[in-house]
Amino acid sequence: MRGQFKFQEDWVYKMPVHFGGYPFYPVRTVYGDMTGLQVGFETDPEKLLPLIPEDFELLKPQVNVQYANCREVEWMAGGDYRLIQVTAPVRYMGNSEGLVGEYALVVWENKACPIIGGREEDGVPKIFADIALERHNGDYWFTAASYESVNFLKLDFRKTGEMSEGEIAEANKNPKINLFGWRYLPNLGKGGATLSHATLYPQEATIRQGWTGEGTVTWTEVTPEQHPLQWKIINTLAGLPVVRFTGATMMKTTARLNVGDSRILP
Amino acid sequence: MRGQFKFQEDWVYKMPVHFGGYPFYPVRTVYGDMTGLQVGFETDPEKLLPLIPEDFELLKPQVNVQYANCREVEWMAGGDYRLIQVTAPVRYMGNSEGLVGEYALVVWENKACPIIGGREEDGVPKIFADIALERHNGDYWFTAASYESVNFLKLDFRKTGEMSEGEIAEANKNPKINLFGWRYLPNLGKGGATLSHATLYPQEATIRQGWTGEGTVTWTEVTPEQHPLQWKIINTLAGLPVVRFTGATMMKTTARLNVGDSRILP
Amino acid sequence: MRGQFKFQEDWVYKMPVHFGGYPFYPVRTVYGDMTGLQVGFETDPEKLLPLIPEDFELLKPQVNVQYANCREVEWMAGGDYRLIQVTAPVRYMGNSEGLVGEYALVVWENKACPIIGGREEDGVPKIFADIALERHNGDYWFTAASYESVNFLKLDFRKTGEMSEGEIAEANKNPKINLFGWRYLPNLGKGGATLSHATLYPQEATIRQGWTGEGTVTWTEVTPEQHPLQWKIINTLAGLPVVRFTGATMMKTTARLNVGDSRILP
Amino acid sequence: MRGQFKFQEDWVYKMPVHFGGYPFYPVRTVYGDMTGLQVGFETDPEKLLPLIPEDFELLKPQVNVQYANCREVEWMAGGDYRLIQVTAPVRYMGNSEGLVGEYALVVWENKACPIIGGREEDGVPKIFADIALERHNGDYWFTAASYESVNFLKLDFRKTGEMSEGEIAEANKNPKINLFGWRYLPNLGKGGATLSHATLYPQEATIRQGWTGEGTVTWTEVTPEQHPLQWKIINTLAGLPVVRFTGATMMKTTARLNVGDSRILP
Repeated sequence: MRGQFKFQEDWVYKMPVHFGGYPFYPVRTVYGDMTGLQVGFETDPEKLLPLIPEDFELLKPQVNVQYANCREVEWMAGGDYRLIQVTAPVRYMGNSEGLVGEYALVVWENKACPIIGGREEDGVPKIFADIALERHNGDYWFTAASYESVNFLKLDFRKTGEMSEGEIAEANKNPKINLFGWRYLPNLGKGGATLSHATLYPQEATIRQGWTGEGTVTWTEVTPEQHPLQWKIINTLAGLPVVRFTGATMMKTTARLNVGDSRILP
Repeated sequence: MRGQFKFQEDWVYKMPVHFGGYPFYPVRTVYGDMTGLQVGFETDPEKLLPLIPEDFELLKPQVNVQYANCREVEWMAGGDYRLIQVTAPVRYMGNSEGLVGEYALVVWENKACPIIGGREEDGVPKIFADIALERHNGDYWFTAASYESVNFLKLDFRKTGEMSEGEIAEANKNPKINLFGWRYLPNLGKGGATLSHATLYPQEATIRQGWTGEGTVTWTEVTPEQHPLQWKIINTLAGLPVVRFTGATMMKTTARLNVGDSRILP
Repeated sequence: MRGQFKFQEDWVYKMPVHFGGYPFYPVRTVYGDMTGLQVGFETDPEKLLPLIPEDFELLKPQVNVQYANCREVEWMAGGDYRLIQVTAPVRYMGNSEGLVGEYALVVWENKACPIIGGREEDGVPKIFADIALERHNGDYWFTAASYESVNFLKLDFRKTGEMSEGEIAEANKNPKINLFGWRYLPNLGKGGATLSHATLYPQEATIRQGWTGEGTVTWTEVTPEQHPLQWKIINTLAGLPVVRFTGATMMKTTARLNVGDSRILP
Repeated sequence: MRGQFKFQEDWVYKMPVHFGGYPFYPVRTVYGDMTGLQVGFETDPEKLLPLIPEDFELLKPQVNVQYANCREVEWMAGGDYRLIQVTAPVRYMGNSEGLVGEYALVVWENKACPIIGGREEDGVPKIFADIALERHNGDYWFTAASYESVNFLKLDFRKTGEMSEGEIAEANKNPKINLFGWRYLPNLGKGGATLSHATLYPQEATIRQGWTGEGTVTWTEVTPEQHPLQWKIINTLAGLPVVRFTGATMMKTTARLNVGDSRILP
């Protein structure tokens, strides 16, 4: 008895494929209630450039660490998850478009479902961590990430001012963000890649409320035993020198992730 | 400042790629302590064949549901996770090898790390669920799987006999299992696949102790709201008629997952 | 070497006591952001009265099931937890005050810390469950509770109208709620109680936004194996007949739990 | 309509009481499969004595930290949980029995159910933490405890030898352990205790396999914001000087917790 599952040409599937796909349409999914904490720091470009593929130009030796509590996630029926995204500002040099955005060095998320989709459908290098809810004592806010009870990252923020309506309106004139990733699948049973290319994942965020302040990120190195899959990532990031913290914000936003506008970059 | 990350030819990488790869070697990773509950049932081939790609021949209209509590997992520094694997017995028809094994309809796992690896490095359609530890009242054993507190699968087993040393020795003469998957990545921003092929993921399991018995699997359908990403999978499997349960076993095994012997099937 | 820990008379302690206590002060702790779903049903008084201690008079044969997503919890540094509270309307008859409120039949919570405090410091019968975040498809909202992936309670709500400012102002004229519990500690090594008395735990909730609608609660019975500590509780509640659902609401509130005003009732 | 719930004299209840109790019988519950890591250290008695109630005599200035992975827990239908117990060796001086055992300074557990029972039915000061599974790299074993992704304790152990059958048989001649606690409930609405007394909780452990080695415990202080309910406990323990580590073991045991033999000490 031959199997009867056939792919529909030009349809879109996810693994497991054989439960069926659907015709392509440009999914743009709303994140109705996002709370973000962003901290940036200047680093040594000699340490950062080895983490940026040659197809990108680093615009400045800056690392941005963004915690987000994602709520009212449309594709999760209003469910939620949390993430910590580490990026650097770049220009894509592989074609003549001069696309500018943030290259995703790593994105930790605390649920498997968005990790799978982000990796496979956008090339965003999402991996798992326990990520604590943002909590606070008055205007001092904090969160942390860990694996098997071993903390590797703390993020601290102190609010010092609130954005005015004018500042918010100004910032919302340019809601678009280009997030760049690198989608890669290995060969099986031998070295090399089956698939390897830069990706563009366009996103938009509309600020509803915002605060300025001072923030820091604090890494704690881990041993290979403590975190067999991520120790190299964590310790490499922990090794990036902090020349100075360049600013920090807290934001309440509504975001739209334009998955359907994602592109393979040549 | 151009990025400086370059791929080493023939090295192996995982996303995020830019923290470095390593030369290929045939990873064979040991799962030192596995406890499994297996329940099989005969179903209507007309319902099952649409879930099997045309490159495979269904050997009999049988569905095997296997719960495993994976402990002493070498690549997790002795860590653990749990899975429920649903397969059907097939022969691969895409080449002349006549490979026989189990086609993975779906594999639920309760941790993100093995899900990512299994999908990307083996084409096994792993997705997330909360999976309860196997518990028991005397010889009656049970487990369950759920998402956001909504149960969708229960597995029940009653031990009626123990395998003799001779039976175990006999069974251990053929420890190899061919697990077949289908690795797929979509295009970005349009329909169709960037990559789509059958995979072979060879595994071995050595039985240390085994029991025969009677078992059942019980599905509960879910609504799209309750489980936006998996309702179709769950409800399709829930719709497979159980002609009869064909046997059930409980096993303590040591397994070896031969990731490095995985292959893309033509 | 004699131990040196001594209790300060009239101070307040929690186990472990020897890390020190503090002078009594009337704690009133704010829950800054609560989202609630309430569903009530009329039941058979003959089934409900055996669950109400003799010191209380049941005001009507009504059961109220309230889910709450508790956020911005002051004593958790802005942390969160979720609960499902099952109560019946009563009058306390043990003294002449004529106190009217809700008797707590059971309260499930998804974190250990509020469970401990509620039981020991207020006599509220809190026990553990996994409780899903409220999610929704448009105006249809739902949540569920489970233990080890076995669902035992679902709560469904459909918004049909929003409370007007006038209705909210009217409702907020009486923000106080008397929650009654029964605090009990067993003897050790023999039967009987070391301590057993009714409690009053005063609370206040100010509505910020409210919706009316239709709701249902659906119980699923569990076996003793599935839930050794709670099967009797769940199955007893599942056995309360639903004569009719009496109304349902969804509320955004700010609450104040007046722990320091809790009282032992005579 | 008066409530109809009455306590049966001499029966035993748990909150919520009104779902019924049962006649007292001396519960002795088996933990079929325990894996423990124990590390002891000598400390400054001047720092430790303030944590020991006056009714106890400290036998030596020693702190014992014990991690246990509790599996095949009979009262959980074969379920599991993990704990980290911190104790000091004492003699109870409140009566003439001369009872010797370990006074429980604090016990962290990763599930609410055993926490509730231990506090209320045995006076053991159990509180919640995330506790990682013991993992290892060869003979080096480790675990950690955290709260909201903030690590506060690490336990490391290196196996250097295995206990002989003779040593195990010798150790198993005295399987009994006296665990002492202090059960306390506050008054409501004012200071002072409703109930406050020492407790004895007899336990037994039979060693199946054991290893000697070297171990350390490493505390990390936390801020009140990070851990509002436990910072004082953690920081006090972190402040106990380690004069020297006095030995470490790893054990596979079967335990019997003699809850029914627990006693209120006069």
